[in-house]
This record gives sequence, C-alpha cells and structure tokens, in this order.
Amino acid sequence: MKIVVKVSGHLISNKDNLINHEYLKRVANVLIQLRKEGHKVYAVTGGGLSARYYINAARALGANEGLCDEVGINVARLHAMLLISALGNYALSKIPRTVQEFLDLATSSDKIIVMGGFQPGQSTTAVASLVAEAINADLLIITSDIDGIYTSDPKVNPNARKLDEVHINQLEEIFKDQKVKAGLYKMVDYVTLSVLKRSRITTRFIKGEPPENIIKVVKGEPLGTLIVY
Amino acid sequence: MKIVVKVSGHLISNKDNLINHEYLKRVANVLIQLRKEGHKVYAVTGGGLSARYYINAARALGANEGLCDEVGINVARLHAMLLISALGNYALSKIPRTVQEFLDLATSSDKIIVMGGFQPGQSTTAVASLVAEAINADLLIITSDIDGIYTSDPKVNPNARKLDEVHINQLEEIFKDQKVKAGLYKMVDYVTLSVLKRSRITTRFIKGEPPENIIKVVKGEPLGTLIVY
Amino acid sequence: MKIVVKVSGHLISNKDNLINHEYLKRVANVLIQLRKEGHKVYAVTGGGLSARYYINAARALGANEGLCDEVGINVARLHAMLLISALGNYALSKIPRTVQEFLDLATSSDKIIVMGGFQPGQSTTAVASLVAEAINADLLIITSDIDGIYTSDPKVNPNARKLDEVHINQLEEIFKDQKVKAGLYKMVDYVTLSVLKRSRITTRFIKGEPPENIIKVVKGEPLGTLIVY
Amino acid sequence: MKIVVKVSGHLISNKDNLINHEYLKRVANVLIQLRKEGHKVYAVTGGGLSARYYINAARALGANEGLCDEVGINVARLHAMLLISALGNYALSKIPRTVQEFLDLATSSDKIIVMGGFQPGQSTTAVASLVAEAINADLLIITSDIDGIYTSDPKVNPNARKLDEVHINQLEEIFKDQKVKAGLYKMVDYVTLSVLKRSRITTRFIKGEPPENIIKVVKGEPLGTLIVY
Amino acid sequence: MKIVVKVSGHLISNKDNLINHEYLKRVANVLIQLRKEGHKVYAVTGGGLSARYYINAARALGANEGLCDEVGINVARLHAMLLISALGNYALSKIPRTVQEFLDLATSSDKIIVMGGFQPGQSTTAVASLVAEAINADLLIITSDIDGIYTSDPKVNPNARKLDEVHINQLEEIFKDQKVKAGLYKMVDYVTLSVLKRSRITTRFIKGEPPENIIKVVKGEPLGTLIVY
Amino acid sequence: MKIVVKVSGHLISNKDNLINHEYLKRVANVLIQLRKEGHKVYAVTGGGLSARYYINAARALGANEGLCDEVGINVARLHAMLLISALGNYALSKIPRTVQEFLDLATSSDKIIVMGGFQPGQSTTAVASLVAEAINADLLIITSDIDGIYTSDPKVNPNARKLDEVHINQLEEIFKDQKVKAGLYKMVDYVTLSVLKRSRITTRFIKGEPPENIIKVVKGEPLGTLIVY
Repeated sequence: MKIVVKVSGHLISNKDNLINHEYLKRVANVLIQLRKEGHKVYAVTGGGLSARYYINAARALGANEGLCDEVGINVARLHAMLLISALGNYALSKIPRTVQEFLDLATSSDKIIVMGGFQPGQSTTAVASLVAEAINADLLIITSDIDGIYTSDPKVNPNARKLDEVHINQLEEIFKDQKVKAGLYKMVDYVTLSVLKRSRITTRFIKGEPPENIIKVVKGEPLGTLIVY
Repeated sequence: MKIVVKVSGHLISNKDNLINHEYLKRVANVLIQLRKEGHKVYAVTGGGLSARYYINAARALGANEGLCDEVGINVARLHAMLLISALGNYALSKIPRTVQEFLDLATSSDKIIVMGGFQPGQSTTAVASLVAEAINADLLIITSDIDGIYTSDPKVNPNARKLDEVHINQLEEIFKDQKVKAGLYKMVDYVTLSVLKRSRITTRFIKGEPPENIIKVVKGEPLGTLIVY
Repeated sequence: MKIVVKVSGHLISNKDNLINHEYLKRVANVLIQLRKEGHKVYAVTGGGLSARYYINAARALGANEGLCDEVGINVARLHAMLLISALGNYALSKIPRTVQEFLDLATSSDKIIVMGGFQPGQSTTAVASLVAEAINADLLIITSDIDGIYTSDPKVNPNARKLDEVHINQLEEIFKDQKVKAGLYKMVDYVTLSVLKRSRITTRFIKGEPPENIIKVVKGEPLGTLIVY
Repeated sequence: MKIVVKVSGHLISNKDNLINHEYLKRVANVLIQLRKEGHKVYAVTGGGLSARYYINAARALGANEGLCDEVGINVARLHAMLLISALGNYALSKIPRTVQEFLDLATSSDKIIVMGGFQPGQSTTAVASLVAEAINADLLIITSDIDGIYTSDPKVNPNARKLDEVHINQLEEIFKDQKVKAGLYKMVDYVTLSVLKRSRITTRFIKGEPPENIIKVVKGEPLGTLIVY
Repeated sequence: MKIVVKVSGHLISNKDNLINHEYLKRVANVLIQLRKEGHKVYAVTGGGLSARYYINAARALGANEGLCDEVGINVARLHAMLLISALGNYALSKIPRTVQEFLDLATSSDKIIVMGGFQPGQSTTAVASLVAEAINADLLIITSDIDGIYTSDPKVNPNARKLDEVHINQLEEIFKDQKVKAGLYKMVDYVTLSVLKRSRITTRFIKGEPPENIIKVVKGEPLGTLIVY
Repeated sequence: MKIVVKVSGHLISNKDNLINHEYLKRVANVLIQLRKEGHKVYAVTGGGLSARYYINAARALGANEGLCDEVGINVARLHAMLLISALGNYALSKIPRTVQEFLDLATSSDKIIVMGGFQPGQSTTAVASLVAEAINADLLIITSDIDGIYTSDPKVNPNARKLDEVHINQLEEIFKDQKVKAGLYKMVDYVTLSVLKRSRITTRFIKGEPPENIIKVVKGEPLGTLIVY
C-alpha cells in the first residue's frame, strides 16, 4: 500500500517538550515497521509550538502573513530533518520543497520520503493531501492530539460528539469558520478539502499518540474518523 | 503603487482564438504604461481553453488530478512567456515557480515579473493573491470575461445581479459549491479566499476586455466588484 | 539494448488533432513493451502543430528566434508530460532540461526518461541524438510522418525515391537547403548531423504510425532508412 | 565601506528569550542606518540556544555530527529569515547557502544580504569570515555576549584579562583547545582563523549588546578586540 | 550597443602559455573600456590548448564524444572565471550554463556577463551566437588567432586569400568539411551558421591579438571579415 | 564497508604529467574492484599542479584568496569528471557541490560518487573527511605522494621519521604551522582535523602510488600511518 502520514506538529513540539524527540523516535519505529512490511511510506511533519514561537517573532518584526507562513514551513522542515535522523537508512536525506520535487523523488526511490511545508497559504495537512494525490496513495492518515473529527471543537464544547465517519461536505461545514492566520490552521484547511473532494482519497483522522495507532489503521482497525465521499 | 494583475486565461485562449496574441499585446501595452507611471507591476496569466485541451488529454492518458494541474500550470507558463515576449525589456525573462522564487526576484529587481501557476490544488487566481500578499500589494486586480461578481452565475441565471461590493464572507458563500476538478476552477478558489481574508488585500474583479479597464481601476474608477472585509 | 526514440511532434499534434492523446497512448504501450523486454528506453517528444501555433504567437509579439525556440521547447515538454502520464510507473516524472541533467538521471535510474527540447538553435531530433550519444545508445529511432529519407521531399516531388540506406554525407546534402526558422526544422538539423557523424550512432528514420514500427526496428526489421557511415 | 557583521546567536536565542525578536529589531535598525549612510552591509546570524535544543534532539535521534551541524545551520537560517523580516525592503529575501551563491547575489544587488550557516564542520563565524573574504570586506565585526577576546575564558577564570589587540597567532593559541562538537563552537573556529590569517581582514570582536556598538566600531571607536597580523 | 565577444581559447591557452593570464588582463581592460563607454558587454571564453589536454585525457579514459565536450565546456568555464577575476566589479560572478540562465541574468543586470560553453555538440562560438541572438545583439565579434576568414585554411594553403566580406552561404561552403570531434571545432560550426543565418546578426571575424582590435571594430573600423546575408 | 578515498591531486597532475590519465585509470580499476567486492565507495579528487597553475593565474589577475579557492575547486572537479569517465557505469555522472548534495545522492544510489572541492577555506582532504562523517564511513583513506605522516616534512628534513600511528593531537601539532594560501594546503588542514577529532573516523594516510595500496589498506594491511584518538 502507498501510505501518507501527517505527523502532528503539536505532538512533536508542545508546552511540555519544545522538541519531543522521543515521540519522533517512536513515530520513526512505526514508519520503519510499515516499510519493512512492504508498504511505501511518506511522512509530512507539522511545526507545532516551535513554529508558533517563530511565527509570532516574525509577525512582531513586521513580516506579512505570507512570510510568517514561510517561517512556519521552515520549522516544519527542521522537524522533518529530525524524523529523517531517526529513520536513518530507511529515509532519503533530501526534503522536497514542492509537489513536483516530491514526485520526482518518489518515482526514483523506494525509501521513506519526509517533508515539512510547501508554500504559504496552506497547512502541512494540505501538503499531506497533495502528496497523497500526487502518488495515488491508498491511504492518508492525519494524526493530531484529538482522536477524530467531532461535531464541534471538543476542547470548547463538552457535548461535542466524535464521528466514526464524516462526509466531506459535512467536514467542510464544521471547519469553515476556522481562522486562517499563519500557524493557526486547525486540522483541515481548504486546500485539503479541495484535494480530498476531487481525488476521493481514503483518509482517516486519528490520534497520533501512541504512534502505533498508525499501524492499527493500516491493518484495517476503524480508529478515529473516516472521510466518506 | 504595487499592483498585481491576474490576466484571464479565457481571454488569452478561447474558442475564437486558441492563442489570442493580440489581446496579450494590448495587455502588455497597459502594463508598460503603468510601469512607466512609476507603479510596480506583477502579472499572472491563466491557462484558458488551451490548458483545458491539454488537461483533458492528460486525464484521458491516466494522469491524476494533481498531474492534470501540473499540465495546466505549464500551459499558463507558456502564456507567461508570450506576455514576456510582448513586454520586451520591461519584463524579467525568468518565470518564478514558487512564492519564494517570486519574492527573491521581486526584492532584487524593479522590472515587471510575469508568472503562470505555482502548484497543484490552486488556481492562477490563488497565485495572484499569494503574490499580492508576499509583496504587500496595494491593489490586486482579477480580470475575467465577466464584469464583476454576480449574486449567481450570470451565464445561467438571467436574474443574477452584479454587485458593486461584496463582503469576503458573501463571496465565500457564492463560490462554495464550485467544482474543483483541475482546470475547472472558476474565478475564485479557497486558497484565494483564505489569503484575501487574512491579509485583507484591496481587490477588484473586473472585465479584462478591454485591458484598459486595468488602468481605470488603478486611477480609482469603481469598475467591477470590490471586495470588502 | 539502449534505445532512444524521437516521437514525431507532427503525429502528437496536427490538423486533425491538436493533441492526439490516443497516439501517445499507443506510443506509451510500445515503449512499455520494450522496457518489459529488458531494454533501456529514452524518448524525446516533438512540438508539432501546437508548437507552431505558440511560436507564431510569440513571433507576432516580438520574440526573437531564440525566444521562439524556447516557446517551442516548452510545448515539446508539455507533450513529454503527456507521454509520462501515459507511461505511469514506468517513467520518471522529472523531465531533464540539459544533456547533463539527462545523464545524471540516466546513470541513477532504470526507468524510462522522457524529455522535450533542450536549448534554442536545435531541433528535438538533435536532442535525441545528443541523448543517444551521451548514453552510448545502441539504436536511435527517429520517427516522422514519412516512411524514411527520400532523394528529395516526397510531398513536393512525385519522383522522389525512398532510400533503404543513406550515407551521412548524402544526408547532409539532401537537408542542407532547409530553413532554420524556429519551429520549421525538418527531420534533421545540423546538430543532429554533427553528432551522428562523430559518434556513428546506429540510426533509423521510420514512419511513426503505427508506433509498433518501433518494435519492428528493435527486432531487426529493415524499416525506413538506415544511416551508414 | 563593505561591512560584514556576525550577529551572535546567543543574543538572538538564550535562556531568557527563546527568540529575542526585540534584539533582532534593534540590530535591524543599526544595519539599516549603516546602509543609509552608504555602506554595503552583510549579516550572518548564529543559532544560539534554539540551535542547541534542535541539535541535542538530532543527536539523541542518532544523527552524526555532520547532520547535527546541518540542523544547526537551518536554525541559523530561521534567524536570518527573522532578521530579513525586520529589515523589510532593505534586504534581499533570498538566503544564500554557499559562498558562491552569496557572491552571485552580492555582485548583482546593493541590498543587505543575510545568511545563516553554510556547511557542516564550521561555525557561523567562519561563514562571516568566508563572506568577508569573498567580497574583500573592509571590516568584519564579530559580536558575542562578551566584550572582546580575553587571555582565557572570563566566565571561568576571574583573572582573565581583556585584550585591546590580539595577534592572529595568539588568538589561535587561545582557542586551540576548544571542543568542536556540533553547536559547541565558541567565538572562533579554525576555518575562521585560516581565512583571517591568509586574507588579513580587518576584524573586531565586540559585545553585541547594545547593537549600537556596531555603529561605534564602523565610526572608528576602538571597542572590543582588534586582530593584528 | 549590445556587444557579444567570443574570446579565442587559443589565445588564452596555447603552446607558449598554458594559461596566458596577461592576455586575459588586456582583454578585460578592453571590455571594461567598452562598458564605461556605455555599451552592454557579454563575453564567451574558449578552452584552447588546456581544453585539448583535458579532452584527450577524457577520451583516453573511455569518455564518449558527448562527455568529452562536457570536459571542454568546463575548461572554458575556468577561463571564464579567470576573465571574471580580471574584470572585478564590472562583471557578475555567476557563469550562466544555458541560454535561459544567460537571459535571466542579462535582463536583471547591467554588468558584464562572462560564460564558457553550454552543451555538447556545439562550439563556444555557437554559444556566442546563441547569446547574441537571445539579447538581440547589435554586434557579434568572433576573435581567433587568424585575422579573418580565408578562402581556405591559410596555415595550409599559402594561396589562401583573406575576405573582407563573406556571404553566410559562402561561409558554410568553406567550413562544411571540418571535423566535428570534440575540441576540434574550428572557428565556426553548424549551430553558429544556423543561428546567424536565421537572425542575421552583424558579425565580424577578427584577430584577437591585440585585443584593442575589439574596440576598433566597435568604433566602425572594417577589420577582419564581415558576414553578409 | 563504507570507504572514502582522497585521490591525491599531485598524483593526477604533476611536473611529468599535466594530466596523468593512466594513473586515474589505475585508480578507477581499484575502486571498481572494491565496489565489486560489495563495498560502498566514494572518491574525492585533488587539483594538483594544474590547479596550482590556474590559481596562480587567478591571483595574478586580482582574484582574492576565496576566488582562488573556487578556481582550484573547479580544477578538482575536472579531475572528478576524468575519474568518472574511467569508472563508466560504476559511477554516478553527477558531481555533488556541497555536503548536502553528496548526502542526497548517497542515500538514493549505490554507485560510486566522485567529487572535487566544496567551498573556499578548506582542502579536498577536508571534503573527504566531511563526506566520511556524513555517511558514517568505516574507513577514510587519504593518499598522497608520501607514504605516511612524518615527524616533520621528509622532503626538507632527512631525519624525519615515519609514524605508524599518530594521535590526532600530535597530528595537529605537526601541521599547525602550515601556510593556508589557496592551493598550498598540505595533506591536512584544520577542517580535516576538527572533523576527524569530533567524529573519530578510522583514517589512514598512505602513498597513492601504486593505487593498489588502497586495496591493501581495505584488507587490513597496516600501510602508512593510522590516526588514533
């Protein structure tokens, strides 16, 4: 299977760990296991709290939203470098910077390819969906610190209900009010929605902790929330 | 003023003219006039009918939506080459392929910079908005074959009413049902909406024929539809 | 065997089909078959009628011959993208833009590599000969809409006689009067002649329709015209 | 004058401020003032504490010293992006990644050029010296959190004495015992020594707080420590 | 005026001087003088004897003609670096590697641009003609160790007669028997002929010693041989 | 085993042979033999006498030391091209220009990778050590025209004594007085020392003539001088 995994930035860098390298180690072990089982594996790392810090500094220095996004993209790439370090010989050392660069690497190598962001105006989740579309992925796994899609934000609304399945149009309704300031992207953005909608990629939103959840999803367990079209 | 102009692909390539070079010539004259008046000018060309033909061929050959977008991007770049030809010494010969490349050129040159698309999953209108954000443009002009934003599609609904102003949220409502198959982007896509919303760029949708409309807008005439935030 | 195939631009894009994707599909099947039989396969696509249209537009807009050539090169690359779409996993997604880039890809991958033009001042047939020289090809197949080299232009002279073999010097005589305006290259240009002459590449000119002719030539059938040195 | 400034990483990122954007703002104002006075200005940013954190994470994940250096280089580049944000139109947006790229930018633009690290095995101070050599700088200013070169480490030895001048050979003696683990480079490394020695660049080590010290040095005040050859 | 000068490789590197840096110094002074007089100046350096040595070594090691050409191209680029050294601040440090890279530099800078070869299968004289075409040069000056075009090789035939003017077709006749082994290109090759023919560039073949001949030609003196169309 | 070999520039280009292609042929045979035995092989070529000539010319033309180094780097790359010619299909054609480019190639290919210099301020021996660190090499072999490290320069001091082992600190003492003018690097420079010290790479200095010495060292023979840490 061709599998694309979005590794949550908030699990890589958060209040308890500016850089949670142990989490990255465990993610790496999971990706290596999948690779050994014969799957083709691609990973996109988010920026998390560290990106937030750098973006705030850039904004305070007068950067516009586009440049703030570039800063966040580069923090996400630092996290990609860390994950590549943990993957050792299983990964390419090169971090692609555009969809085209990714595709060029993916068609010429069987190794795990890891990347951070691509361009301003989109989240790293959008990167994961573009990458999944580009290689006709069989499965896109989007991890976060929540165990799926809820009817509303579970951190705010205690009555929010987790959905086992969500139609793409329903997902759009849920997220359409989100703010789009750089670094404040939530789990989904409009590029992600557009790409999923048109290419109908099999996609699951799951909790990234423990990372072994990724393996469960690959084996067919109905974790988190599945998008239906 | 820093001005970004989206040149409608459907005016460059359509049923009557696979490549309407005379239109490009007139657009070039307008951009040169603005440059001579001291404005900084950036232009993004669309793919139009020619892109449609190539995308259809790619899809028939098994290309996924991402690759179809790449094909459309390259047709738009061909149109950028034509516009650069018409601009002669007023333009850089290099066509940037990412926001970062654009910014690197814009900070090191005063010439007109022309580009086509950037990446799959977004329209050339999105490119124009990303570019406008990157250089803190004073004005973004989006041309098409319609003279502004209507309450619904004027080609379908004879009762559709042209709006002099449209709130960004209203614009989102109008366009949210659009299809997102490669090459079928309408005048706006979600990347455009996100970028405009967060950076509140002064934006006008106008009819691109005659291209002198662009000059009128720069001089302050209330042509077409203005986005309000 | 290492085989380089020049795919005729005039069979990809002509008066009946601005983009003849069905022809490209059949060419792709032929190249895949050769690859499956163990051959190393490289293909160069021409620009055909579509390139003519774009070059004419560029010239009308004031582009010099060099820039017109660049426009034609980019149309040929669009055709390369289409052929790559049809080849799917058998091809690299990257289109090399210089001989050196081609060589770097060819020494690091076994997949089919497809490209359009390289630089102004030479035809895509010249690209095919440079590529054949660079990887010491065993066979260079140049397809066109004619079934070989004639003593003079068979479309003009009804008494023109097809040659089974042609000496490289004789070939030079036949083609030396050709025009060299951008996009008007005929089947051979001087770069091609120079490269073939010095590297004595086994080369056959054949009719590209049906594309199965390519397989016949690889199997040793004496189709079209063979160059002798 | 052509001036190269090494901006101390430890003043950009330290225990009190993971990212001290206010310091960067003040540095930017100083550099802009120098630019307005007609000087050509180039700046190299260090990685500081943030780099230390990321390098430690990389090392814990199995990265070798070379890869740890690459991680540190990318953190330094993030700091370069922040400084570029603060410089606005006075700076190029492009961050050169090699001496050659720097030189290509410096010979084609008059704007301030900012960069982080170049390659493993050398500090950002080495980058500043290589850059100073490449453009035949009149003055190289190396800032740190100490007010000059001491006979030994003033943080360890209370009897350490600040030197107004230091001979390059004496400097080499002082620093030759330093550790060379990635991220632990002190104020000077061997590439710096080699480059200064052979090109005899006028170099001063000064305290980077307040950044106005940089202006004082440019005006001729004998702050910190001058290298003599 | 826009002037392109081909600097003879055989005057840069020959039996008496493996690297004749004094000649390059004098050429640099001439180019600087032209630049100071307001002309736009571009130079292409040949490989000369040093290229011959390296190409012979490559061939002896099994390189094909294409790779031999690449070796010669890189020697020519070394000579470009030397000329750039002598030009100091009057030249860009970047050496373009393709026509497109050249054009991108030429449209964004007023400095002297120097380059060696571009691609296999063509001489550095061809590079000079492609460059002249790309920027619509007013004058192309091709220097060599001979004072113009002769009816036959003056080193072989004592009755050879120097021509004041030569028609492009006559030039083609004279050179068509030349060998095209890598490094053995004479003053003209077929790419040069094709480009000159189609773009009708004003071109003069002159003796490159003394380099002040270049200035004389710019001032209108009828040195060497003029091509007529 | 992962093996990095520094091929002595002075054995490639010296007073007797400006380009000793026969030596390169023999080196190539040795590297191919190691590759066939299953080792991963990487080679760095020096510039030797030819680099000296070119550097002297550059310096005479006003190049600073940094630019002189760039000239030397490009001569070393020419030698890399020659070695690649001799290696044929066993080598990648691409010559990496930075540590990162090298690593990207090394993680995606099993072929022999050959390179010259990387950046000013360091020798090609430094390049070899950086490359060895980047891929965690098991063995670094530094060849020269001397059979190991001596207590002082054996060409000057007849009492100099060859060492079977040398501690890294002792090595530093021996070489610390060396000159650092471009092209005058001796067998070791400070980047080399820093990298070896921190990464404790198993390193042997041996005589490069005959090249079969390389095989002996790989097989465990105690030739030349071993660095101990």
